[in-house]
Amino acid sequence: MNPLTSPLLTDLYQLTMLQAYFAQGMQETAVFEFFVRKLPPNRNFLLAAGLEQALDFLEQLRFGDEELTWVEQSGLFRKDFGEHLRGLRFTGDVYAVPEGTPFFPHEPVLRVVAPMPQAQLVESRLINLVHYETVVASKAARSVLVAPGKLLVDFGLRRAHGAEAGLLAARASYIAGYSGTATVLAAPRFGIPLFGTMAHSFVQAHADEAAAFADFAQVFPASTVFLIDTYDTEAAARKVVALAPQLQQAGIAIKGVRLDSGDLAAHACNVRRILDAAGLTRATIFASGNLDEYRVRELLAAGAPIDGFGIGTSLVTSSDAPFLDAVYKLQEYAGTPRRKRSSGKATWPGRKQVYRHYRDDGLLDHDVVTLEADVQPGQPLLQPVMRGGCRLQAAPGLDALRAHAKRQLAILPQHLRELASSTEPYRVEIAPVLQELAARLDQQTRQPATV
Amino acid sequence: MNPLTSPLLTDLYQLTMLQAYFAQGMQETAVFEFFVRKLPPNRNFLLAAGLEQALDFLEQLRFGDEELTWVEQSGLFRKDFGEHLRGLRFTGDVYAVPEGTPFFPHEPVLRVVAPMPQAQLVESRLINLVHYETVVASKAARSVLVAPGKLLVDFGLRRAHGAEAGLLAARASYIAGYSGTATVLAAPRFGIPLFGTMAHSFVQAHADEAAAFADFAQVFPASTVFLIDTYDTEAAARKVVALAPQLQQAGIAIKGVRLDSGDLAAHACNVRRILDAAGLTRATIFASGNLDEYRVRELLAAGAPIDGFGIGTSLVTSSDAPFLDAVYKLQEYAGTPRRKRSSGKATWPGRKQVYRHYRDDGLLDHDVVTLEADVQPGQPLLQPVMRGGCRLQAAPGLDALRAHAKRQLAILPQHLRELASSTEPYRVEIAPVLQELAARLDQQTRQPATV
Repeated sequence: MNPLTSPLLTDLYQLTMLQAYFAQGMQETAVFEFFVRKLPPNRNFLLAAGLEQALDFLEQLRFGDEELTWVEQSGLFRKDFGEHLRGLRFTGDVYAVPEGTPFFPHEPVLRVVAPMPQAQLVESRLINLVHYETVVASKAARSVLVAPGKLLVDFGLRRAHGAEAGLLAARASYIAGYSGTATVLAAPRFGIPLFGTMAHSFVQAHADEAAAFADFAQVFPASTVFLIDTYDTEAAARKVVALAPQLQQAGIAIKGVRLDSGDLAAHACNVRRILDAAGLTRATIFASGNLDEYRVRELLAAGAPIDGFGIGTSLVTSSDAPFLDAVYKLQEYAGTPRRKRSSGKATWPGRKQVYRHYRDDGLLDHDVVTLEADVQPGQPLLQPVMRGGCRLQAAPGLDALRAHAKRQLAILPQHLRELASSTEPYRVEIAPVLQELAARLDQQTRQPATV
Repeated sequence: MNPLTSPLLTDLYQLTMLQAYFAQGMQETAVFEFFVRKLPPNRNFLLAAGLEQALDFLEQLRFGDEELTWVEQSGLFRKDFGEHLRGLRFTGDVYAVPEGTPFFPHEPVLRVVAPMPQAQLVESRLINLVHYETVVASKAARSVLVAPGKLLVDFGLRRAHGAEAGLLAARASYIAGYSGTATVLAAPRFGIPLFGTMAHSFVQAHADEAAAFADFAQVFPASTVFLIDTYDTEAAARKVVALAPQLQQAGIAIKGVRLDSGDLAAHACNVRRILDAAGLTRATIFASGNLDEYRVRELLAAGAPIDGFGIGTSLVTSSDAPFLDAVYKLQEYAGTPRRKRSSGKATWPGRKQVYRHYRDDGLLDHDVVTLEADVQPGQPLLQPVMRGGCRLQAAPGLDALRAHAKRQLAILPQHLRELASSTEPYRVEIAPVLQELAARLDQQTRQPATV
């Protein structure tokens, strides 16, 4: 049972509810929406990502023999439950906001319309996929915004939370505008450009640092980037310079150096001077080591001559905001809008659409959330992407998504581009028709709710 | 290419270094150690976890045809590189601190001794596995310590960072003392007990809350736990009470109720009173909803009559400390100790052992880190677990690891059991012989290092 595809990668209550739905014949159409209840600290917008993985999951959903055997032998379910599961496929419709689009609290970014058991079962894994990639894309967008024109590379695999996180972080950050990743599998899997040089262990394994550099250059003549902070950064830079004539004679161009520790701004200045004095003006300086968007902004503000940044742990764990208050809620069942009213967690009922409005200069102005039936001016964000369990069109290429995200980030107004939470949050209006529906549903049970 | 097992789930520089090692014939024995440089905020100890997954990875390491084809066609490597990779297996030795053991900064918890290319290649995925499970086990231990005797259940799958994180979080938290998980796949995969009830959507899908409860009870007569906060918690508790006689007649016992929002302490008191007044004194109250160890401690300190807690997002993302400063560093190559001296990131060289010392009352007193050859009194923590690429013994059962962790947590001194960082950190001594070796290596290059 592969956790990446097994339908048993779900919460037990999905299965217990499913059994009850089957037993009670509750197979009417359910409408669930995925949205975020509030922004985490230090975020002025979120960037949608993870849709393609969610659609893959829905298309491939099925219980295999191994899973059915476990269900039967677990002793947790009725005898006929396995038979219901055997034939289960996802045959529903999906509407979604395109990946790489900024979105805000209370805006559905994914809507699933399917018979109740199907729509319910997929909850845990859909959230798991869309939540994580959205977390990373939203984090990545921040370093993209503070370092325009710089090379940004995902270095996070080792401290990502497991294999899938490592792989999907490469995808999500690439969509958001990173140049590539160090995670090799992201190339065969998604076609993402790879970056990488050498580790300290390579230098340490050689008795002599200069010998390590010379060895490496011979093996990778086309992309020679030296890691120069293993012992003494400036001394190593001078070793690179001393090595340069001999490499040039062999036809090997020094692409650049990487700094991974210490005062990066000071080292970068010193190293730039050393390289330039030796005529290595085209060799680039790449920095890494506990970096995040704050540190990158600081380094650039200090005028550090750094051409690119490797950003790892802070990106793939979204360390300052490692999760979103993201949920997938029932908004309609059997044609009737539904509303959860739990304290502090109430939802806006019904099938919804988000209309985006732009300023005259093209920047984002505000959004309106309303019922799907309430067609409004503005740009509707949710688009049909799956019908009857089949994708409506082939997955867009990653480069198309990346280009889309780039255009979208370019039209964010200045106050949303700041790293700190803006005192002026983006305006998301709840349309009167939606407020009225919520009030009507509350009245039916004589209980107001607070969103 | 399955990211869970593919050797291409690695950093590009591992492959570029490997090519250089092959090209230069650098296949001598390398010794790498995995350790944590410093404790994250709010942690007084870490709990080792993830070893079995790391050993599985090493045992199964091989490049398949698909991977080799990609390597050849990528244009990144020399023609003969694929042939080197085709035959590559992990044939090394591994020493490790048993899972469920507390450990501290600068203490190696895993040591890999293998020919350089093998030991280097596995770095990214080894860290990825051991880091994440250790992050979660260390976080889980905190709620175990503040809620002795309470039922603790992992509810985190949906906001875990991908599929593997969701699955491994269930394992790591179970080792640390959780009672089980909601993640179904953890049962067939690891034999972890499952917990789960119903979601709000189940209640919402019914026109009437009481009807939802009655339907659910009929389908799950043996484990009926009602979620009672969808609309009005106390009103729902009274519906449960009203339903009780009819369920009892049908031979259905009400196991308990779950609260998921609002003022949990107040609701728990009210609901306890309502249940008790109706004679449902054995029905338990289970709480969930944005919980973490701080909130659990608060609720218990307030005397809230809560029998169990579902802890999700904060656990699986370790939200207050989503990563560790965990590294895997070359300590010896070809028989010679090595030392990285990068500013603020210097390492203690050589093959090391950790000796643990206990107080007379059995509690942890202090540890000594020294060279393997420097046999000392105290309990050595690192044990051989793999030789020549083969496990020395079958994986211990999870329940054995859980029992070990329980004994280990029981002997933590009080100041390490606090949720806040202790002003008196655990004492980890660096043995004189190790300090002398480091000084000697520094002297050879005339450059002191700061750890």
